[in-house]
This record gives sequence, structure tokens and C-alpha cells, in this order.
Amino acid sequence: MELWFSERHTQNVKFSIRVERQLYSGQSEFQRIDVFDSREFGRFLTLDGYLMLTEKDEFIYHEMMTHVPMAVHPDPRKILVIGGGDGGVIRELTRYEKIERIDMVEIDPLVVEVSKKYLPQTACRLEDPRVHIYYEDGLRFIRSVHEEYDLIIVDCSDPGGPGEGLFTKEFYGSCYKALKDDGIMVNQHESPFYEEDAMTMQRVHKRIVGSFPISRVYQVHVPTFPAGHWLFGFASKKYHPVRDLDAVKWNMFGLSTRYYTTQLHAGAFALPYYVEEMLKHVE
Amino acid sequence: MELWFSERHTQNVKFSIRVERQLYSGQSEFQRIDVFDSREFGRFLTLDGYLMLTEKDEFIYHEMMTHVPMAVHPDPRKILVIGGGDGGVIRELTRYEKIERIDMVEIDPLVVEVSKKYLPQTACRLEDPRVHIYYEDGLRFIRSVHEEYDLIIVDCSDPGGPGEGLFTKEFYGSCYKALKDDGIMVNQHESPFYEEDAMTMQRVHKRIVGSFPISRVYQVHVPTFPAGHWLFGFASKKYHPVRDLDAVKWNMFGLSTRYYTTQLHAGAFALPYYVEEMLKHVE
Repeated sequence: MELWFSERHTQNVKFSIRVERQLYSGQSEFQRIDVFDSREFGRFLTLDGYLMLTEKDEFIYHEMMTHVPMAVHPDPRKILVIGGGDGGVIRELTRYEKIERIDMVEIDPLVVEVSKKYLPQTACRLEDPRVHIYYEDGLRFIRSVHEEYDLIIVDCSDPGGPGEGLFTKEFYGSCYKALKDDGIMVNQHESPFYEEDAMTMQRVHKRIVGSFPISRVYQVHVPTFPAGHWLFGFASKKYHPVRDLDAVKWNMFGLSTRYYTTQLHAGAFALPYYVEEMLKHVE
Repeated sequence: MELWFSERHTQNVKFSIRVERQLYSGQSEFQRIDVFDSREFGRFLTLDGYLMLTEKDEFIYHEMMTHVPMAVHPDPRKILVIGGGDGGVIRELTRYEKIERIDMVEIDPLVVEVSKKYLPQTACRLEDPRVHIYYEDGLRFIRSVHEEYDLIIVDCSDPGGPGEGLFTKEFYGSCYKALKDDGIMVNQHESPFYEEDAMTMQRVHKRIVGSFPISRVYQVHVPTFPAGHWLFGFASKKYHPVRDLDAVKWNMFGLSTRYYTTQLHAGAFALPYYVEEMLKHVE
């Protein structure tokens, strides 16, 4: 038998994974949630049919979203994660002893429940005593927060789903307000390659640039995402993502990683010319 | 009507492009050659069913293969291109006035003929008077060459096809011999992500390390290649790919590019940890 999961990266491009079996399928108040098992990628999670993570390549996304800001901020103690119900970012964060508290705001409790049951590789540290989960809309949660966090990580799905509010000007302004005066925000920033993704990327960048004095973008290779080329935003009140990288200090932590290195950290901020141009166009 | 071209990136992963129409299909002495037109990627070329280039993203591969060594070597005048019958590397090379001669060795005349007819975007500079085309096996051609070239670019298809000999220890040794005493060789180095590609990548690296005193690897995002994550090898008798990069000089040439920048040049040599480990394992 051949069973294939396919995702349209555009109307004219399809990425397909051969599936061994479907482990879960359900509908929450917000979205359809599926978990599959595959020979190539291990288990993978989809929301409304869009691939969110696979066991084989999730380390790339989660390491790069977490360790980049953690290697720049000199003393991150209180962290907010918006979205990220699969637990991957939490897993990476909880490896830092010096972090005192992690608040996670996930709109959909079923994503967390399903991840705990079917995706233990990412959802393995959600019970850490420093982690506090709020099942709320991220935009609503952040409106009432003032100068609380050292770092905010926005790990949401693409616009169009329940994460829509997390791409608004109001949201980024609220993140700015919720950060301490040397705070950093990192967000998933879409992809520069296919036209529709690139337009979202530009819209997001324009809004973040309007809210933060420092706003840079860095790139990673995520093989199961459209074009395999994904961007993250690094927005900050004070620290520069490369000039304020403390490589020696980060390497002293002794964390083992599979994608992130402090050399790669700096290299990831060197973007292709066409991406630089797209960003400049909205700055 | 829906017409889809599909390539298996592994037995369990498929990448598919919606096709408007097939422009050419033929069989040479060496391989099956097809050209398609598509809405997403423009025209694209396949050899034995493997995607070689698309009009939409070929600039990434060709710029990064050409401008990286050209920005390092202080005075490249005589260049050898092995493979590259589509003309993309030649197009980029001919933009440098200071190059005096480019020898291109392509085993399959039909690839060149088809590219000239159907892929004018890449095959547009093959008539440059500095370009000399030899329809020969690259391995055989290079055996008799001694200290002739400043730069050799190995732009071949994957092992298994007619490019098989271009992945051997003998071939890399012959390239070393064919280079002047400050020569550079750049080669397409496969991908680190899927297991079979990664094994080829390691095998290639081991052989190049055995032939050249300096051998580094750099990475690019090529959306239509497996995993979107592709590597190039930079092997050299004398120059280091980053320390000997002359950014000021290269930028003075005033060449406009869409992917390459001298910042990206340096960044591209910062590899993910898992890739560094794979390379170290065979060094």
C-alpha cells in the first residue's frame, strides 16, 4: 500500500511524504489536527493540513528560534512563548538553568494534549516546574502585560489560521510593551521564496520595524517547509543579534546542539541579496 | 487539465511541479533529456528524470558556484568548467572582463544543443569568444592537463549518471594537478540532509580532502533541490575561502547579483553542527 500526505506549497508545487499510518485525527475549536508516522521523517504534525513539524527536522527550527536570542541576551530569566503548543521551544529553553520562569500562551489546548500523547520528542518538558501554560489567545494575553519579559518567542502557525492576530501591528506593539527595556522578541518570519510567503514576510517585517528600534532577519534550512528556506525575525530594544552575541559565554554553557553553533548564528544573519532587497523595500 | 512532474527526493519523499507543457523530450547517447514549462518555476530541465535547474531558482546555484571562488582568487584568467552544459556557470563567468579563456568540457552535446534552444536564460553566453567547448568525458580530458588553470568549476549531475567519473579520487587528483600553484576547485557537493545524499557528500569530501591542502564546504538554499539544502566544495592549493576573500575588490567590479553578496559569502561557510560533524568524520 502507498499512502501519501501532500501539501501544496503553492497552487503549482506539491511536497509529499509517504505515510506509514495516521496516528491521530481530530478537530478542535480552532483547527483540524493530525499526526502521522512516516519512514523518512518519523512522526509529523499537521494543522489544517499544513505541516508544522517532523521529528526528523524539528531540531533545526526549535534550536534556531531559541538559542539565537539566548546567546545574545546577557541575563534572560523570564520568557514568554506564544504558540509553540508542540513543546519544541520549551524543550530547548528548559535546558538553561538560569531561566526562572517560562510562560507559554497557546490558544488550542488540544494541540498540547495531542503533542503530549503523540509527540513526546518535542512535548517532553512541558511539565518542568518553571513552565506555566495559559490557554488563551496570544494577542489578548499580551495586551495587559507591561515590561515583564526578557525574551518573547512567537512560535505560531501561518496567518490565516488561529494565529492571525499574531501577525498584526497591534500584536508586535504589545510585545514591545511587554518586554523589559533590554528585551528581545524572536518570531517565525515566513519564507522569502514563493510569492505569497514573501508578501507575508514583507508585511510582517514592516510591522516589526515599526515597533522595534532593532529588527534583523536570519535564515535557516528547514527541509519540510516551503522552499526549505525559512526566516526568523530578531527584534530588540537594545541588543544587536550579531554584535552582542557572546559566543564564549554561550559555549561555556556546554549545551549540545545539532544545528546551532555560535559561528552559524552570525552566518545566519547574512542573507541573499534578493531577501535583503525585499526587507529594505519595507523598512 | 493537471499535468505534474514529480521527482522522488528519496523513496519516501516526492517533490512535484505543475507543468504547463513539455517543450522537449529526447534521448542522447548518455541520458534522457526533458524540458518543461511551468507557471511556478518557468522552464526547467531534467536529466534522466532528475531536476537540474529551473529558471526561477537557477541564479542561486550558478551565482554561488561562480562568484565565491572569483571573489577569492586574486587574478583568475584561465578557467575550466566541467559539465555545466546548460550554460549557467558560463553566463556568470563571462561577466568578468579579466577572464581570458574559459574551457568547458561537457560530455553530452545534446544537453548544450537543447539548452541553447530551450533555455536561453542560462545558455545565453556560450558564444562568447573566450569560451571553448570540448565534448568529452571530463575525467579523460583532465588527465593530460598540467598546471593550466586558475579555477576549475565542477558542475556535474549526481553520481549514477554520466557524471560518475567526476566523483572519483582520480578525478580530484587530476584537478589538483591541472591547477596552477594557487588554483581553486569548486564542485557541487550534494546535500547533507537525506541519508543517501549525505553519504555521497561524505564520500566526495573525503576524496577532496585527500587531494587538496585546503578543503571547505559552503551551503546554499536551492528550493527545487532535495531538502532545499545544497552544498558546494571549495578546495584550494593556497587560498582560504573566507580569510582570502577580497570583498572590497569584488564589490568594485560592480556586478549585480540576486543571491551572492560578500557578506553571504562568509556566512555560507558557517555550517550547521550536524553537517560539520559529518565532514569531520571523514577528514
